[in-house]
Amino acid sequence: MPEINNPEALAELTAAFRRYEVALTTNDVAVLDELFWVSPHTVRYGPGENLHGHAEIAAFRAARPGPFGRELLRTVLTTYGSDFGTANTTFRREGSQQIGRQSQSWVRMPEGWRVVAAHVSLLPPGVG
Amino acid sequence: MPEINNPEALAELTAAFRRYEVALTTNDVAVLDELFWVSPHTVRYGPGENLHGHAEIAAFRAARPGPFGRELLRTVLTTYGSDFGTANTTFRREGSQQIGRQSQSWVRMPEGWRVVAAHVSLLPPGVG
Repeated sequence: MPEINNPEALAELTAAFRRYEVALTTNDVAVLDELFWVSPHTVRYGPGENLHGHAEIAAFRAARPGPFGRELLRTVLTTYGSDFGTANTTFRREGSQQIGRQSQSWVRMPEGWRVVAAHVSLLPPGVG
Repeated sequence: MPEINNPEALAELTAAFRRYEVALTTNDVAVLDELFWVSPHTVRYGPGENLHGHAEIAAFRAARPGPFGRELLRTVLTTYGSDFGTANTTFRREGSQQIGRQSQSWVRMPEGWRVVAAHVSLLPPGVG
């Protein structure tokens, strides 16, 4: 069985997750693009779009409107062995009452930890 | 770098993914429970609920209404090394025009391939 939450791996994943969160809320598109695996296999399902491959994801990032605030509500980071992790968090955006959910699968590539798949969605209004 | 889509690993993941799909659409709760990792770390965000830990997920499954049909539209299965994989698919449920998205992170545990995190959501009506 892969070791669950090896301290070193979990610390690395946590640092990468936090770096992503800062980049997302400050609209640092270069870092967002960096942290997603540069591959046609990469998938990102967003609240209103399905994106396949790093090129589609980067094009979407380039069109994002700008910085925004959000509060993370419940975050679960888990590593499996030294090279694979999942990051799941619920959140609420500033000015919204809806609960959002962000799921990421991370893999430690030679260039660093990268998101290989992500899914972001909102619960229906009034749920959560 | 972990080997991407090693043929043996990908075949195993594909078999597990298909088994899950049959269990889901036939409402085979025993198999659904089996294929999610028995751990408090397991997360499942569904279209209308956030579930933390296998116990919450199993309670949700037990209350599901019954079998249903759905069509998978675009499926991307990817493995990283021999023990980790992601399964992403878009789908449309029978009788619905909304596009759904299902994301799963799989880990090969001693007991077999298991979903350690999942996220299912629907695009807003008219999108996709």
